[in-house]
Amino acid sequence: MPNIGYLNGRFMPLEHVCISAEDRGYQFGDGVYEVIRTYQGRPFNLEEHLARMERSAREISIPLPLDKTEWESVLLRGVAQSGYANCKVYIQVTRGAAPREHQFSASLPPTILVTFREMPELDALHRTRGVHAITHPDIRWGRCDIKSLNLLPNVLAKQKAVDAGAFEALFVRDDIVTEGATSNLMIVKDGVLSSSERNHQILAGVTLLCVIGLARRHGYDVQERAIRRKELESADEIFLVGTTIEVLPVTQLNGHIVGNGLPGPVTNSLSAIFSQYIKDNP
Amino acid sequence: MPNIGYLNGRFMPLEHVCISAEDRGYQFGDGVYEVIRTYQGRPFNLEEHLARMERSAREISIPLPLDKTEWESVLLRGVAQSGYANCKVYIQVTRGAAPREHQFSASLPPTILVTFREMPELDALHRTRGVHAITHPDIRWGRCDIKSLNLLPNVLAKQKAVDAGAFEALFVRDDIVTEGATSNLMIVKDGVLSSSERNHQILAGVTLLCVIGLARRHGYDVQERAIRRKELESADEIFLVGTTIEVLPVTQLNGHIVGNGLPGPVTNSLSAIFSQYIKDNP
Repeated sequence: MPNIGYLNGRFMPLEHVCISAEDRGYQFGDGVYEVIRTYQGRPFNLEEHLARMERSAREISIPLPLDKTEWESVLLRGVAQSGYANCKVYIQVTRGAAPREHQFSASLPPTILVTFREMPELDALHRTRGVHAITHPDIRWGRCDIKSLNLLPNVLAKQKAVDAGAFEALFVRDDIVTEGATSNLMIVKDGVLSSSERNHQILAGVTLLCVIGLARRHGYDVQERAIRRKELESADEIFLVGTTIEVLPVTQLNGHIVGNGLPGPVTNSLSAIFSQYIKDNP
Repeated sequence: MPNIGYLNGRFMPLEHVCISAEDRGYQFGDGVYEVIRTYQGRPFNLEEHLARMERSAREISIPLPLDKTEWESVLLRGVAQSGYANCKVYIQVTRGAAPREHQFSASLPPTILVTFREMPELDALHRTRGVHAITHPDIRWGRCDIKSLNLLPNVLAKQKAVDAGAFEALFVRDDIVTEGATSNLMIVKDGVLSSSERNHQILAGVTLLCVIGLARRHGYDVQERAIRRKELESADEIFLVGTTIEVLPVTQLNGHIVGNGLPGPVTNSLSAIFSQYIKDNP
């Protein structure tokens, strides 16, 4: 089963995709993206991902040339061509190619890239034992609510985590925990769930919002508010949330055990609720 | 005379350069760059640009595969092939191409791109009348001393300036003026020159350091320190400094006239000193 690429209207083997050296995505990170996964061939939370991409693009004045139905058609065709039941779909829209200068023309045609790869299975031990995380200074720009290609601070933080034997880096800005380098996070204290206040410092995670909704529907108290570093450090449970990782327990933070060192009961319960939701909403 | 591209060891027409969709420069802005210009076919301040690129790359752990002599050889061959006496050389080194995930392998071979274009002439009126600038919130990340490809905030600020009929946006963070979206800046008050304190919030401009050195050698008092917004607003003279713009007077700030509305005497003097330096140091 091949990895498939879609570039500006044409499908091809991913390795045949050829980007202009003067694509503004390449020289400025001037673009937005989404990662969508399929379960049994069907894109999950597609509408939410497309709505978020539209918002991201609008915030930086990139006109999206496809509407919802057209995106859906591209995705379904690519997924079918790839043949992957669990497919990782990466959509990237950049402002287009032009001789390099910072300012841009509103009429430049955007570059649309979609890649279709097999969704890698997460190490099963990550789920049963939980993962390790580190905290890391959040030195990103002031508009992390835009899912843009300016990801260097995320890259460097994630690598720092990996170098430390951890799975994720959790950003802290002015003593407030914002989000992970590649995920959102939630904490549990005395049975109450907390998620970072949604503002310009964090991305409104599609899976996060889905999990928050499910938690509330199952009777959990979920607060969306500023989480202080000390609260993170003294949480009963911490878990990460994201498209590819789903609900993933954190059992060590900066080398210290979280709770009793095992995935906690609320995390396990939400993980099961989320898995059931996926099965019920193909 | 053609625009030339150099990609990983090979020269070709610029439009033939083909970048992988999975280049980390394209998906993360995971790379560094320099813009170097030639005067009469000779790269100006080449050593300083290469040293800065090496530092930028080192700060984000990208191994530069060419040494100084090799870079120089690539640049001279490309400049000769292009035939442009005044050539704008753009060097970009990204971490290389790999299936998308934030963490990276230290052994990934970087992608080296160099483009050779004709240096566009700056509008002569910009020099004689000065340009307009606006101030803009500096919401960039915390390592602007690294010349990375994460340039979206610069792009958006520059566009804001252009939309307002101005040439440049000057970033202000916590009441401190840092630098322009595409340039450094200096101010003059009572004959004393000031330039922003060099720290993680600004790029150490090659042309800026050259101009500061020349100014001091010509007897000017130059202070490198935090410049407050109010000082910018009440400066006798403001000018921009950069590789492509050289020394460029700012005669309007946020719609208000700077000084008497004409390029000031210190700006004009430094502009002439810099032009002479270029002629004397081919």
